[in-house]
Amino acid sequence: MGRKGISEAVIKRLPKYYRQIKMLDDANIERVSSSTLAEILGITASQVRQDFYNFGGFGQQGYGYDVKNLRKEIAAILGLDQEYNMIIVGAGHIGKALAGYKGFVKEGFRIKALFDINVQEKTYNGVPVYPMYNLEDYLKENQIDFAVIATQADSAEDVARELIKNGIKSIWNFAPIDLRVPKDVVVENISMSESLFVLSYRSKNRT
Amino acid sequence: MGRKGISEAVIKRLPKYYRQIKMLDDANIERVSSSTLAEILGITASQVRQDFYNFGGFGQQGYGYDVKNLRKEIAAILGLDQEYNMIIVGAGHIGKALAGYKGFVKEGFRIKALFDINVQEKTYNGVPVYPMYNLEDYLKENQIDFAVIATQADSAEDVARELIKNGIKSIWNFAPIDLRVPKDVVVENISMSESLFVLSYRSKNRT
Repeated sequence: MGRKGISEAVIKRLPKYYRQIKMLDDANIERVSSSTLAEILGITASQVRQDFYNFGGFGQQGYGYDVKNLRKEIAAILGLDQEYNMIIVGAGHIGKALAGYKGFVKEGFRIKALFDINVQEKTYNGVPVYPMYNLEDYLKENQIDFAVIATQADSAEDVARELIKNGIKSIWNFAPIDLRVPKDVVVENISMSESLFVLSYRSKNRT
Repeated sequence: MGRKGISEAVIKRLPKYYRQIKMLDDANIERVSSSTLAEILGITASQVRQDFYNFGGFGQQGYGYDVKNLRKEIAAILGLDQEYNMIIVGAGHIGKALAGYKGFVKEGFRIKALFDINVQEKTYNGVPVYPMYNLEDYLKENQIDFAVIATQADSAEDVARELIKNGIKSIWNFAPIDLRVPKDVVVENISMSESLFVLSYRSKNRT
């Protein structure tokens, strides 16, 4: 626990390495060089080696890296060597899309329940949907690792408070708002509209 | 067209400024200082002024910024002072969630059609759903500015090629793959699983 001094840029590259290495492994490729990884990721080979050095290096660079081992090591670093229970608060379009997405289960993220103020159906894609007033009891009775906030911006802060009060320490936030949380709570934001606006900016300022 | 030398970090902050300034404006707040904006965004006041300086400064800092004017200026920089027609390729969970999301229309992004190999319903949330083999004709007959790729990774590259061949120059990519595109095509990626893995990493390496 508690790797320190790893830069944001390296942390953000880890899932990209993982994705590429998984694809290589699934294609039965056994070894990969830092220069091949570098080319795929659009960085330099020395950057790849430097990134890996943060985590002990992953074996000899002269022979390239053992793909299976690399996959296992990076999965473990990302915490993908275990399973997690998730709940989603907000059963709107995004909440439902996440509940329906099969890719998360494959990586060990199990979506256990959806919560919403306004319950319109009892289950969605096999995931039970509960009213918000059940959230506290549910969190007391179930071991939940991650909570997804997929509500409107104006209720996200209240939802976060309630989740944290009931022991949630990791939040994946889809609401377009920066949540204020205690230091021991981890929040990862994903903002659709910010991404769309960057696209719009780049389209306008095409070079 | 063609602002040059604006850093990636500044571009990524623009939507955050826009979001905050819109909230201030909607709350009828007329002026805002760089230090208030800085606090909200978690950066320094001098960084805010430096960011704005890239675009001409937006008025005197001693008196703070005029919120309405700032909103208008940043909207224009982001290209949000006009309307766009979008299509979505891939009518799975994510494609449908995007088609159902009302927030985009408010900012001028109109979702005109969904495309999928396997058309299960003729419309979704009022958006027509067409089979993939209609894509080429559709793009010839309609003025489409942005295309969203919400397919599986393994078909995203083919979809991108088809879109580009038919004149699309701006792609919002939700497929977990880095698309290879000609230089004049703009791609903005949004990767759910990368974001989730970063959350998982941070949860494991909590400090």
